[in-house]
Amino acid sequence: MSATVVEVEKVEKMKNKPEDDQLGFGKYFTDHMFVMEYCDETGWGNPRISPYEPITLDPAAVIFHYGQTVFEGLKAYRTNDERILLFRPDMNMKRMNKSCERLSMPPIDEAEVLDYLKQLISLEKDWVPSSEGTSLYIRPFIIATEPFLGLAPSKQYKLVIILSPVGSYYPQGIQPVDIKVEEQYTRAVRGGTGMAKTAGNYCATFNAQSTASKQGFSQVLWLDAIEKKYIEEVGTSNVFFKVNGEVITPELTGSILPGITRMSVIEMLRSWGIPVSERKISIDEVYEYHQEGALEEVFCTGTAAVISPVGAFEWRGTSININDKQIGDVSRRLYDTLTGIQTGKIADPFHWTTEVK
Amino acid sequence: MSATVVEVEKVEKMKNKPEDDQLGFGKYFTDHMFVMEYCDETGWGNPRISPYEPITLDPAAVIFHYGQTVFEGLKAYRTNDERILLFRPDMNMKRMNKSCERLSMPPIDEAEVLDYLKQLISLEKDWVPSSEGTSLYIRPFIIATEPFLGLAPSKQYKLVIILSPVGSYYPQGIQPVDIKVEEQYTRAVRGGTGMAKTAGNYCATFNAQSTASKQGFSQVLWLDAIEKKYIEEVGTSNVFFKVNGEVITPELTGSILPGITRMSVIEMLRSWGIPVSERKISIDEVYEYHQEGALEEVFCTGTAAVISPVGAFEWRGTSININDKQIGDVSRRLYDTLTGIQTGKIADPFHWTTEVK
Repeated sequence: MSATVVEVEKVEKMKNKPEDDQLGFGKYFTDHMFVMEYCDETGWGNPRISPYEPITLDPAAVIFHYGQTVFEGLKAYRTNDERILLFRPDMNMKRMNKSCERLSMPPIDEAEVLDYLKQLISLEKDWVPSSEGTSLYIRPFIIATEPFLGLAPSKQYKLVIILSPVGSYYPQGIQPVDIKVEEQYTRAVRGGTGMAKTAGNYCATFNAQSTASKQGFSQVLWLDAIEKKYIEEVGTSNVFFKVNGEVITPELTGSILPGITRMSVIEMLRSWGIPVSERKISIDEVYEYHQEGALEEVFCTGTAAVISPVGAFEWRGTSININDKQIGDVSRRLYDTLTGIQTGKIADPFHWTTEVK
Repeated sequence: MSATVVEVEKVEKMKNKPEDDQLGFGKYFTDHMFVMEYCDETGWGNPRISPYEPITLDPAAVIFHYGQTVFEGLKAYRTNDERILLFRPDMNMKRMNKSCERLSMPPIDEAEVLDYLKQLISLEKDWVPSSEGTSLYIRPFIIATEPFLGLAPSKQYKLVIILSPVGSYYPQGIQPVDIKVEEQYTRAVRGGTGMAKTAGNYCATFNAQSTASKQGFSQVLWLDAIEKKYIEEVGTSNVFFKVNGEVITPELTGSILPGITRMSVIEMLRSWGIPVSERKISIDEVYEYHQEGALEEVFCTGTAAVISPVGAFEWRGTSININDKQIGDVSRRLYDTLTGIQTGKIADPFHWTTEVK
């Protein structure tokens, strides 16, 4: 909280704000953005809020050639009494630094950047939508900007925070989705960058995702790269299985993104007395549990959907339906409680939310 | 060769050209660059040569968030009789399209872009240096530019070609290098993006490379991600082992970049009657061959160094020296022949070079 109030250059003419039902995801951006720069000699500096405007980089900037970059994603929610809440933003700052470490990038001062982020949201508070399920998506990212084609970490970086009002993930109410188990492509492997939120992990999944979409699936389930057996993630979400009353989620082995919703779900389930285990779980095992009638619920967790129930899996030509393609009780309770806390509708016994003044 | 002459906007004031002995790698850029753009509705268009100038992108451009991008690297050489030669540039265009396919990006017209590339080099021909070992490095790259945070292939792209005069890789003559076998980090895995020339593959290696450099090694040797046993690449080069008169190089399994120098070395060795096999080769095997006195030479291949002999490996605390840390006969002959062909000093029986008029 030691950060000073940043310099603000306001836009001359504000944009028209879209209607809540037109928002979608990541299409509209607010009037301002936050920027700060790093160079090896002086560290991070020049923090400022400017009009939302293009980024201008030398064509030899490292980001364009070697992809040195990290990002985060979190949301601001408007409460019924017009307060603005953030959900565990300190965890995003912490994870951003973990990602930076893997990508050979300089760390940020977590408290300072969080304070800047709040100043930006405070300025843009009219952009936080209020309809059910809407929020202001916050995208901090750091890009390597040094104009040098040698293979080495950049000596210059730019940290940018942009804001995008986003619509409800479930405009028609929650619908459990069909998931294809991906056999050909791989998302990540031990010793790689899977645990970091970095650009290269995402473009690598477009191919598999496009093919699955054409086949009528909502997302793909990623298996481990080594044995093509153990479950890692679904799309860009973490995944949970309720089996005989116990909830199981893949343990963080280095190739799985440590989701903040994932972490919150584990803590919440434990607070409810529901056993949770973080361990390896194979796709064979999931099919066996289903065969035995023990597979009660499957759901994914992430910032975008919060909780996304899985209705069916397709693996090597065999489909299984989960809980008759209905949302399960635990999934529903998690969704209602998490979104209730996020939007200030219910009490926050975990102290997960932070108000933006 | 059907491409028309592109529109050229010339710089008003040309830069001072650096001295050949100051060049280094990827630090200096020429006066002009080539740019063309793609959008889903109209395809590739608006090809032009402009002054070398910053690229201006929306902060939500896909490249910054999901790293959708591919690149290539090749060189132009000045001959003693002042001609400018390219080395197998058609292969770079072909590989660029292979990379595009993996990254869900639209293909380019290979012949057309090659023709544009030649027009740019022709305009910048005074930038091609002439000292021994120098060349003009050519960096074509395509970046995803659509301002959209949804996880989907971009609908807009920019193709850019920049040129950088580069110094000799061996200003003090060829020195075999010490290589550390990397055990912790991983470069690529089957089903991933290892065979594509895309940014995310490169930033992922900075950590391992920095650690190895601090320990006094020139590069790391990458093992396969699955068994951590089979040899894949060295740094960003392909690698060859001469064992009992036979040359062995790892087969292209999907996680190894299909190098154009690699391909040329295989063809050249075969033309000389030296047996070459592309197959799996494990690090244990290499150490056994050394033990038996059968490991005669090891060398890496790539656009930057052409041929880079390996002097020693370090793996799990055991070092082995190769050929008394001297460059071997085959490595030397390959280097002399390849660089001789590239610079027009010797005949080109393979028809690998193309002149830029």
